[in-house]
Amino acid sequence: MTHSNASHNNTSPTTDNTSHAIVQTDTNDPSSLTWQPVTKPTPKDGEALVAIQFAGVNRADTLQAAGHYPPPKGTTNTIGLEAAGVVEDPNGAQRPDGSPWQAGDQVAVLLSGGGYAQHVTVPHGQLMPLPEGYSLRDAASVVEVATTVWSNIMMTAHVNEGDLVLFHGGGGGIGLFGIQTAKALGARVAVTAGSQSKLDTCARYGADILINYKEEDFAEVLTAEGGANVILDIIGAKYLDSNIKALAPDGHIVTIGMQGGVKGELNIGRLLATRGTISATGLRYRDPEDKARIVRATYENVWPLLADGTIRTHVDRVLPVQQAAEAHKALLAGEITGKIVLEVPQV
Amino acid sequence: MTHSNASHNNTSPTTDNTSHAIVQTDTNDPSSLTWQPVTKPTPKDGEALVAIQFAGVNRADTLQAAGHYPPPKGTTNTIGLEAAGVVEDPNGAQRPDGSPWQAGDQVAVLLSGGGYAQHVTVPHGQLMPLPEGYSLRDAASVVEVATTVWSNIMMTAHVNEGDLVLFHGGGGGIGLFGIQTAKALGARVAVTAGSQSKLDTCARYGADILINYKEEDFAEVLTAEGGANVILDIIGAKYLDSNIKALAPDGHIVTIGMQGGVKGELNIGRLLATRGTISATGLRYRDPEDKARIVRATYENVWPLLADGTIRTHVDRVLPVQQAAEAHKALLAGEITGKIVLEVPQV
Repeated sequence: MTHSNASHNNTSPTTDNTSHAIVQTDTNDPSSLTWQPVTKPTPKDGEALVAIQFAGVNRADTLQAAGHYPPPKGTTNTIGLEAAGVVEDPNGAQRPDGSPWQAGDQVAVLLSGGGYAQHVTVPHGQLMPLPEGYSLRDAASVVEVATTVWSNIMMTAHVNEGDLVLFHGGGGGIGLFGIQTAKALGARVAVTAGSQSKLDTCARYGADILINYKEEDFAEVLTAEGGANVILDIIGAKYLDSNIKALAPDGHIVTIGMQGGVKGELNIGRLLATRGTISATGLRYRDPEDKARIVRATYENVWPLLADGTIRTHVDRVLPVQQAAEAHKALLAGEITGKIVLEVPQV
Repeated sequence: MTHSNASHNNTSPTTDNTSHAIVQTDTNDPSSLTWQPVTKPTPKDGEALVAIQFAGVNRADTLQAAGHYPPPKGTTNTIGLEAAGVVEDPNGAQRPDGSPWQAGDQVAVLLSGGGYAQHVTVPHGQLMPLPEGYSLRDAASVVEVATTVWSNIMMTAHVNEGDLVLFHGGGGGIGLFGIQTAKALGARVAVTAGSQSKLDTCARYGADILINYKEEDFAEVLTAEGGANVILDIIGAKYLDSNIKALAPDGHIVTIGMQGGVKGELNIGRLLATRGTISATGLRYRDPEDKARIVRATYENVWPLLADGTIRTHVDRVLPVQQAAEAHKALLAGEITGKIVLEVPQV
């Protein structure tokens, strides 16, 4: 295979195998995230090699650092589920329009891991062009939330125009992205958050119903509004019964996080009374074909909404990747509205 | 509106308002089901009047007699969710092909209640022609199971060719119908039942994997087979955790009964590990538009499979409607394989 010359000199293919990545030096210490030299990864058949410039931070990354969210078998132990950078070796990858990716092309990638690094190998189906007009920094902030929101509220729960959609943690990365996506689909949006300032941000991004979970019972508020047709839940057990109470007939709860515990009592009778559905989903352990399907749908449906400004990303702060541990700390402390992004030093 | 002359003299419109129905004379006694004179019901706008000749018996009917399954507001207290008979007053109803129903036409009907009677009023969308070649008796035995199976395994859980589908209570009316429907869709079928004779019947109707729940752990068997993509469940709480263990990745549990209890512990972590979905559904409380949509889909997709013999009904026995209490007793005792049908004396 021949590659065209890279257009960005600072990212042209290197001939040595030097790279750097965040390594967790003590598996019992989630803050032992150190930037150090590593062997540059080699793409297998069906994978491209990408030189990363920015990596998004997700709550799942903090779980992995704490030992609760192991990477899928056969993938890197390096943390990081999304990134943006430059293709170093496309290795035969094709863009969504069927044309070949070229070394030097800017790219956004969905990862099973490995984002907190200078280089990562990526299955071909998980490469996306940047949204039109987007910087690498902003692109790194939308991959995980966009694929998560689209796969769950559309591909799993099929939001319809006029539906009422509830996002727990409305001020987080998924929440702010979800609000805008649901509004773009013609839905009404309710959110829960733990502070007025986060609720104000939710309102700025289009949320219609603002619920401070410290002051109000969200199930009561939703019931008074006719019930939620779709709930995107990050709490799990603690909200299980209230989520069911908050459902409209034929409503759908999609749980993607368990910040409120793993096991809870399910009242099947209550679920049946509204003909409700509960799904628990995640992106990380899906097989590459499934991820490619989600990436493709996200690219086709969500990228245009980013390009025309219907959905805006909210990057709360950018830290050098060497400060990954501080980034995790800030996220866990609830300091972050929207997204936090790590900047990776260039080779 | 004018009606053509009825072709069946014994079902031509009567001018008096005499009718008979099963009345539960003691709401504390599920066996106090007595056949007695009642006022003939009058169809409202959008309803037809049907003279019933056969009514199917369902487990839900036994629940209603026991006080656990009240009819939807505004509908009759008379038990009975499905029937077949003759149109007495179509009141403007149209067949699926758009032609008008005529007085005297044979018809199968899905009901919110009222089947154990000589006359019932039926929303227009819940009338179906008999499957080609079917008797009224056999037609009365398939309405509830066909709409239940189709709405759940296809419209809710979207069974695909090659899927593995598990039916609990494989020997029951829903089970035997479900086995054949899933096989017609190209699925593999597993069933649970409590006796070898019921399992033998399941095998005759096409079940591939036979599990005596008294002797085997169905979750282990299913796991060894790669997991169930769809589970149609009538047990509820008691099977909740085992059903999740038995799921294939992205599998879907649809619970339509709670014979094993209403409340159970949901392990959301386990559900998330397979990206599973749990729905709890029922037909009875859906609004007429929703029922019409399900009846229509069943008529279009399942009726041809009945006409060509791909799916066969299994009527275990026919009793006079006056023996409704005995029918319920036999069903609850687990004596019935497939369906039990009540015959209604003609006016």
